Formats: sequence, structure tokens, C-alpha cells
Amino acid sequence: MTQNIYDNDEFFAGYLRLPRSVAGLEGAPEWPALRAMLPDLHGRTVLDLGCGFGWFCRWAREQGAAYVAGIDVSEKMLARARADTQDDSISYTLADMERIELPPQSFGLVYSSLALHYVEKLDRLMAEVHRALIAGGSLVVSVEHPIYTAPRNPGWTGDAAGGKSWPVDSYLDEGPRSTDWLTKGVIKHHRTLATYVNMLIALGFTLCRVEEWAPSEEQIAAHPEWANERQRPPFLLIAAKR
Amino acid sequence: MTQNIYDNDEFFAGYLRLPRSVAGLEGAPEWPALRAMLPDLHGRTVLDLGCGFGWFCRWAREQGAAYVAGIDVSEKMLARARADTQDDSISYTLADMERIELPPQSFGLVYSSLALHYVEKLDRLMAEVHRALIAGGSLVVSVEHPIYTAPRNPGWTGDAAGGKSWPVDSYLDEGPRSTDWLTKGVIKHHRTLATYVNMLIALGFTLCRVEEWAPSEEQIAAHPEWANERQRPPFLLIAAKR
Repeated sequence: MTQNIYDNDEFFAGYLRLPRSVAGLEGAPEWPALRAMLPDLHGRTVLDLGCGFGWFCRWAREQGAAYVAGIDVSEKMLARARADTQDDSISYTLADMERIELPPQSFGLVYSSLALHYVEKLDRLMAEVHRALIAGGSLVVSVEHPIYTAPRNPGWTGDAAGGKSWPVDSYLDEGPRSTDWLTKGVIKHHRTLATYVNMLIALGFTLCRVEEWAPSEEQIAAHPEWANERQRPPFLLIAAKR
Repeated sequence: MTQNIYDNDEFFAGYLRLPRSVAGLEGAPEWPALRAMLPDLHGRTVLDLGCGFGWFCRWAREQGAAYVAGIDVSEKMLARARADTQDDSISYTLADMERIELPPQSFGLVYSSLALHYVEKLDRLMAEVHRALIAGGSLVVSVEHPIYTAPRNPGWTGDAAGGKSWPVDSYLDEGPRSTDWLTKGVIKHHRTLATYVNMLIALGFTLCRVEEWAPSEEQIAAHPEWANERQRPPFLLIAAKR
């Protein structure tokens, strides 16, 4: 089973204070880039893998989605999602992405934001997702970038001139990484970028776009503390079609 | 025009001593992975962008290619390629990849090994390549990996335990990088992995496979000095189809 770190009290308390928890989609700096990769949602049935507080589910309905199914491994996240949602065309379901079974040819979009790097058996899940999409259906996902997840002891190093760099090691050695983010011992699964891409192609997806996201110059002007993020991309965004 | 570093005497002297110059394709450790991405060559017309000494051109003919056109910016490389080749179905042409014009729908395979990172206007060249391929034709290329080309001052750093890491900076800032490899001031063009992939997709290619190549455990057993290469991939291999 995926480590359910969101139901850890310390992690959850920290997560609640993140801009993306307070301000929703607009609090996530990569959201404009991810949104630009989405198809027209009008009339689509949508699945959100790792829906959290339901921000995307509600937004998708505002864009005209016919029905949105959100799944998450965290009961705490879902309790708040349900409390914040008054819409009979959105459902929230507790489920483990390692084991979930999805109805075939049921969705016009499968979406996932920063959740899939917690999944160990991603090839099994993506096979389920491929089966669950209708022909022509879209997959749009974000994960932590492999350059970000590779190091055994991730962190910035500085040089004498004040420039920062991100030491990469173990990039080719895929598998779990234990990091301390909001709490100790958060388990993420490092995969190479090639593994993400080839997994989708092997399942029959057509790759539409890849983004190695970092803040734009405009975003850095508004948030100078993000400047280092352009040294290496924190997030990987992928759009593909069945 | 692309910097023609191969006609620099110091660079060329160093290049001549590389295993891949002495032993040909088998001297390049990434060759088995690149070869595995190639289509059946029997009866195909092949273009090799940056053919160097002609090793691949001659090998392609041995695999049954109908005709092989090698192009290169270095007169020195082509002189040796011509001297080493006795085959009327292989041609070698001096050309600048920044400006080359290719005959439309003429090739069943366009191949390029570790040459495209020297090209500044890669989008223009890839548009030419797309036009030059027949429907269903293949593109198989290797370049230096973006993790490898990103840093302003590339090099390994060590930690106290003897582990090596590759500090990454400037990944999102695409453009020329001047490095000292075999001689001073070799100009390569850094692009993100997403830029390579999205450029091909936007031109109408279908992406078939991406490899972030590093030596296998077997190769490291035979060449322990390559072990660090698994910390970050030195080469990016891409296969796509028109």
C-alpha cells in the first residue's frame, strides 16, 4: 500500500499551511502550465487521482465537466473535500492507488497533480488508467521531477559567488527515497523521465507534451525566493492521449 | 554556422585517440542501446547527420540499407570516411547542419550520433528532417543529456564518503555552453529534455522511445572507471517516427 503520509498529524498540519492548501489551484505556481495542457472539459467525465481537498474536481465542474470522480488515500483530505463541495456530480472515494480497479472506457480525462511519485506500482496503475480512458481520452499529470527526486540526500549547495546548484546522484537507480518534508520519513518513488515516458508509450498512449516546469521570470519577479527553482525543474508535467 | 571544432587540430588529435575513433561503433558504450532503437534497415535509404569517419554509414550498408548519405561539417572527418569506404552506395557530403536543405520524402531513416547538441537552430534542422522522411520513416538520435549540458561549470563533486554527485544549475536557461573537452572553447547548445521532445511532437513526429543512457552494471564491471556515469545520464537517446 502507498504510504498514507497525509493522515500523519504533523505532515497534515504542515500541508494545511502550504499556499496550495490555502489558496487552492491558484496557490500552486505550476497550475497555469498544467491547466494549459488540459483538453476542453465541457461534457467530459473526469477522474482525479489524488484529489486532496477537491479543488480540481470543483474547478473541472465549473469548466463544464459532466461528472468528476476524485479518489484519494487520505480520509482527512476527503473529509474536507466533502465538506467543501455541494455538487451531486462530484464523488469522492477513499482508495489506494496501488490496488485501485477502474471501470473500462469510462473517462474523458484522467488528471493527477503531484501524487503519482508516491505510487510504487505505477505501471499497474497506468495500465488501469489506459483501460479506463475512452478512445481519444486525455491523461494530464504532474509529478516531482526526476532530477528533484534522484538524490539520496537532496538539497542545494552554494558556490563562492552565491550561485546555487542541485547535486544529482543515483539518477539511474530507481526506487524509494525517504525525505523529510513537513515530517520525517516521507517515501517517494524515484523514476527516470525516460521511465515515465516509455511506460506510457508501451501502454499505447500517444505522448502530446512534456513540461519541465520551473517558475517563469514573471513569477520570480513576484516571488524572488523561487529564483533557485530555475537551476533545476521541481516538477514534470506530461500530457498524453489514448 | 555551427562551430566546426573537428577541424581544430588539437581537438581532432584528441578525438582520434577516443575509443570510438579507434574501435568504431563498438568503441561507443551507448551503441548497443542506440542500435536497439533502430528499425530494420533492409532496403532503407539512410541519412547520417554528423557521420564523422563513416562507421555507421558502412554498418548500415552491411545491414542491408539500399543507400546511405553521410553529411558532416568537418572536411578532416570526411577525408578519412572516404578513404575508409569502398562502396558506391555510400556518399559523403560536406554540409553545415544549420543551413542544409534536404530532398523531401527521401529517407527511411535519419540517424545522428552525438552531433545535434552542436546545432544552434535545431528546430529548423528537425523540420527539414521531418520533410525528408517518408511516411513511417524513423528518426533515431543521440545527444549529450540535458543534465550533462546544463551546468555553467560542469564537473563532479565528491562527498566525504567518496560518493560523487553532478551539480546541476541553469537547467532552464537554454543556450550555448562553452566547455573544455579535448580543446578549449567547445560550444554546445543546452536544451531541456522537454524542448527536444516537444520540438519533435510539434513537427508531427510520434515519439517511440526515450533512453537516458548510462552504462549497465555489466559494462561497469568491465570498466569500473565508468561507475559515476550512473549518478546522472551522460547521453539522451530518442526514437521517433514520421
